[in-house]
Amino acid sequence: MLALTDLASETPLALSVAATGAGALQGALIARSDDDLDLVGMATLAVCLGFGGGVIRDVLLGTFPPTALTNAWFVGVALAAVAVVAIAGRHLHVIEPVLLVADAAVLGLFGVIAAQQGLAAGLPSIAVVFVGVLAAVGGGVIADVLRGERPMIMRPGPPYALVAVAGVSTYVILVEAVGAQPAVAAIVAITVTFAGRVITFRAGVRTRAARTGLRPR
Amino acid sequence: MLALTDLASETPLALSVAATGAGALQGALIARSDDDLDLVGMATLAVCLGFGGGVIRDVLLGTFPPTALTNAWFVGVALAAVAVVAIAGRHLHVIEPVLLVADAAVLGLFGVIAAQQGLAAGLPSIAVVFVGVLAAVGGGVIADVLRGERPMIMRPGPPYALVAVAGVSTYVILVEAVGAQPAVAAIVAITVTFAGRVITFRAGVRTRAARTGLRPR
Amino acid sequence: MLALTDLASETPLALSVAATGAGALQGALIARSDDDLDLVGMATLAVCLGFGGGVIRDVLLGTFPPTALTNAWFVGVALAAVAVVAIAGRHLHVIEPVLLVADAAVLGLFGVIAAQQGLAAGLPSIAVVFVGVLAAVGGGVIADVLRGERPMIMRPGPPYALVAVAGVSTYVILVEAVGAQPAVAAIVAITVTFAGRVITFRAGVRTRAARTGLRPR
Repeated sequence: MLALTDLASETPLALSVAATGAGALQGALIARSDDDLDLVGMATLAVCLGFGGGVIRDVLLGTFPPTALTNAWFVGVALAAVAVVAIAGRHLHVIEPVLLVADAAVLGLFGVIAAQQGLAAGLPSIAVVFVGVLAAVGGGVIADVLRGERPMIMRPGPPYALVAVAGVSTYVILVEAVGAQPAVAAIVAITVTFAGRVITFRAGVRTRAARTGLRPR
Repeated sequence: MLALTDLASETPLALSVAATGAGALQGALIARSDDDLDLVGMATLAVCLGFGGGVIRDVLLGTFPPTALTNAWFVGVALAAVAVVAIAGRHLHVIEPVLLVADAAVLGLFGVIAAQQGLAAGLPSIAVVFVGVLAAVGGGVIADVLRGERPMIMRPGPPYALVAVAGVSTYVILVEAVGAQPAVAAIVAITVTFAGRVITFRAGVRTRAARTGLRPR
Repeated sequence: MLALTDLASETPLALSVAATGAGALQGALIARSDDDLDLVGMATLAVCLGFGGGVIRDVLLGTFPPTALTNAWFVGVALAAVAVVAIAGRHLHVIEPVLLVADAAVLGLFGVIAAQQGLAAGLPSIAVVFVGVLAAVGGGVIADVLRGERPMIMRPGPPYALVAVAGVSTYVILVEAVGAQPAVAAIVAITVTFAGRVITFRAGVRTRAARTGLRPR
């Protein structure tokens, strides 16, 4: 029988760190495209996108100190991403498409990890989905606010938080209602998030202003 | 003898949830009047105004997970408010005056609940007032920041945080100095907050820019 | 033998409170120079610069309630600073140079206190530096966001967070690698931060936009 690693409850450290690195690279590259941010600003955005969501998750669930601080890898990889972008940033914009794809995977991974911990904490399903989505998108919200932008997830545009909602809900439903193995549920949920993000993005799907309601214009 | 429910230490769940619902409706209606927010933006503001202050309170007092997450009602009623506004929002702006009145009551209720918990945690009176006021106004501050607005409570205008200060101080003084029953103190304090908000608003009282100091211009 | 007070692990209360007061005065004076902030806005900035960083530190390290709330002095001195500036603010702008000097000392003190607590919590060195710097600069970041400004520490200009990094790193290296007494390490680290801030400021050193990388233009 195959011993599947449970991605959610026993996330391999290398995977968590890689996810943090991917987020941090994104943050650093965003900073690099902005004339009004210095190295500290770059590091701030790298940290927010690297492990900001994880810190929000840990604070909400009462895990102190947050996992991102109990292990040297997380701050380390975020700073490494800053160093790489500061030194070789001009060559790195070619990897931005790769990062966008990585981001879609990380979005699902962060949501599922937080959802698993929320279930372990005994939260009701709807609160688990809330925590999972907040963990997945919260770091980006803080980064946007710090840059002086209205958070991307709140604005009309390609669905982002909504695919996280779909992915985390999938995980919770599979584990709680269907009784699936957490490892299987995690892989399915991350796939749903990833596919949902890539497909809606490619298809040009956009959310609309909420004032237009749910009916067609 | 009348067995008064202690509004602060044993807030009936229905009351907490109703308060969350009133805040969430306000948040969703604010989002509806903004062309640059989608359904996720609406949900974000609904959550901030619904239970953002309660989460701030619980984090400061060390209650994990926050009450808003240990019970399905809070996220549930916030999302229900979003659904109602998204579907029937055009008909709901007529209830905005009702929501403003509800907001004045909720402002007092949230402040008093947090103050009671602060006293139970053994905080000094001045810190209890601080936590109470932050719980009452903090969700709105986050919502304002996310919308890209300077927080309303910090700007010259109708007194808002100051009436929360008056209400929470009333509660703390009645309980700590006067020795009043918490239930009685809560009702008086909420009444003070409510009346203070409604009367100053109707009378057109406005705070002034701090640079003008406390003296008349 | 001289019994040095360990500034980091046994910070005298009077020193912590004085540091809070210096920060709060700064915050209140910033508010006074802004036409669009009232007394509550002034108090908000005073609180952020007075003990915002300390609350961030305590939340990250799991100290609940935060120290700033378990003692009446912190909220008290912040409000006293607001009262002083509201009443006598027009005469206080002459002390702003003094406050800038005090700020350089407080920057080091806050960083070192948090670093000591981070070490005591068993965090790895790199995470300790992260927490120390966040404690030193975090209150200012929140104040900037609330005023609607991009955080000063993220923008090209006189080094601020970087001197905190230098100071906190000095503390951690002296304690962990050199085996210095914490009290001695604290004094050296605060001196490094203070001198680094004053010298770079006077010399007109400025950070550059991160996009220019680490190489000379």
